[in-house]
Amino acid sequence: MSGASPALVASGPACVALSGGVGGAKLALGLAHVMDPARLLVVANTGDDFEHLGLHVSPDLDTLTYTMAGLANAETGWGRAGETWTFMAALEALGGETWFKLGDGDLATHVERTRRLRAGETLGAITADLSARLGIQARIVPMSDDPVRTIIETKDGESLAFQHYFVRLGCAPQVAAIRFQGAERARPDPVMLAALSEAEVVVICPSNPLISIDPILAVPALRAAIEATSAPVVAVSPIVGGRALKGPTAKMMGELGMAVSADAVAGHYGDLLDGFVLDTADAALADSVRRLGIEVLVADTVMTSLDDRRALARRVLDFATRLGEASAGPQQAQPRT
Amino acid sequence: MSGASPALVASGPACVALSGGVGGAKLALGLAHVMDPARLLVVANTGDDFEHLGLHVSPDLDTLTYTMAGLANAETGWGRAGETWTFMAALEALGGETWFKLGDGDLATHVERTRRLRAGETLGAITADLSARLGIQARIVPMSDDPVRTIIETKDGESLAFQHYFVRLGCAPQVAAIRFQGAERARPDPVMLAALSEAEVVVICPSNPLISIDPILAVPALRAAIEATSAPVVAVSPIVGGRALKGPTAKMMGELGMAVSADAVAGHYGDLLDGFVLDTADAALADSVRRLGIEVLVADTVMTSLDDRRALARRVLDFATRLGEASAGPQQAQPRT
Repeated sequence: MSGASPALVASGPACVALSGGVGGAKLALGLAHVMDPARLLVVANTGDDFEHLGLHVSPDLDTLTYTMAGLANAETGWGRAGETWTFMAALEALGGETWFKLGDGDLATHVERTRRLRAGETLGAITADLSARLGIQARIVPMSDDPVRTIIETKDGESLAFQHYFVRLGCAPQVAAIRFQGAERARPDPVMLAALSEAEVVVICPSNPLISIDPILAVPALRAAIEATSAPVVAVSPIVGGRALKGPTAKMMGELGMAVSADAVAGHYGDLLDGFVLDTADAALADSVRRLGIEVLVADTVMTSLDDRRALARRVLDFATRLGEASAGPQQAQPRT
Repeated sequence: MSGASPALVASGPACVALSGGVGGAKLALGLAHVMDPARLLVVANTGDDFEHLGLHVSPDLDTLTYTMAGLANAETGWGRAGETWTFMAALEALGGETWFKLGDGDLATHVERTRRLRAGETLGAITADLSARLGIQARIVPMSDDPVRTIIETKDGESLAFQHYFVRLGCAPQVAAIRFQGAERARPDPVMLAALSEAEVVVICPSNPLISIDPILAVPALRAAIEATSAPVVAVSPIVGGRALKGPTAKMMGELGMAVSADAVAGHYGDLLDGFVLDTADAALADSVRRLGIEVLVADTVMTSLDDRRALARRVLDFATRLGEASAGPQQAQPRT
């Protein structure tokens, strides 16, 4: 159980992974390392995209891209390694807005992507091209080329664009509700729907369910495709021991009246899931999850090294593959090559 | 003759200077040092402005601004001191256009200005605000808020946007003609027209006459105001000893059939001028210029140090002030305070 078969490592099942930024990108990188990356498609949240300084900024797409290209800043979890900050210092001297930090190298992504968007290319086509240029073999696909914008409704009655809540206000306001503006009309890329129809495994990465995964699931055709897939859908808990490993997940869950626990995340996804991965620290919650009709894998989910990412990715793929074989019945339960 | 009166140094005549980039900015900086900078208005060429990477870039405005703010890169003559180049390296990896070098700090100017232009502010208002934020006490004004674009017609029959000729092709094509697209319809800022009507001295800086000063003079109301001013108009030669101190001035003059000499520059400006400043190397050309009806000052015009800039500025102001006093007659020939 603690390792994939050689065949799995060499090719792996066709896998679609849903991911937000930092936490999700760690597992996405692990997946790309333990399977044929050409068979991996990562769907990125674009609900926290925004226009800043006249530039289109896609924070989760970029964290995924930099992480999978080996360019990510391991210390901050966002942005690029070896970054310089001359632009921000000069912008401050000019009286520009500096609450959202854009590194000099990172800026190349925003400037070039904005230019290409204005020239009429889709976000998906630009993402595919830029990630290929950075040597990424897996496909990274925005959840939609249409704009979806996460709006935080606060208990003070304010409606905040996501990055204003998240970065400018440091998640301080109390969350009353979360909306995904534009999601109802958003269409997923046909490439993604084709990948979902052929997927052998769907992985929901350990991202914030409320603001990283829910926006993806709010795209109607995308949710329908995930509901319709015959592939097992497996989520990895972003909550370990009642705390979020990163970011405001726990605070937001509490403010929205959810229990801050891994099994509450499983309950949040509900019928969408075939399997759920609990951290070893939460092994006692396994029965609570199983009572929801969801299979459970208990594993070390805290990823600090690349080895951790690879190991968790292997466990998740192995778990999902077993779930798929079990549901397909014995005649198809041969190892795939 | 080799120094201004103390009164002149303390306040100086109300001065309007016309300038392109590097060479002109040196004298503009010198002027700001030897007179009350609040009485100095520098009109910048915007004929070589262009849209690049989706950003509005104003090379001459920026060279003037950085120079007068003490931020200029003394080695290159353009861009900022202490610049970093992380953006360009990252842009290259993404397959972006890299023939026009934008430093990381410089980029803040382009991004912030483009954002403000798109928000509806004028180039003049943005320039005034940014230069004030950088501590510049003189006023820097674009020749027009309306777009004027210098087009190089080559002997091969091509029409090249200026920066493509200048930077991308390194001035290699042979010039057949130069056009200033949009100049006929361009309106100068009323602030500039008011300054010209009150000017006691008009200085044409040692910039390329064909591509830095001619675009300014191609704005009809601006040229008319300079023709109508009672203030002496004095130009400083950008050609010394038959060579341009910087850039393609000499090559372009030759290709357009002009003699490559300082007196040819005086002849090019013609009736507009009351005085012309020749370098000591070109003292022998003084009579040739005087035959055009233009007074001559012979001075050291090669500015390498800040002291050189200050010294030339003092000489130019002194020369122009004497010309103004001579034409105004003896009853007004008292030193101004």
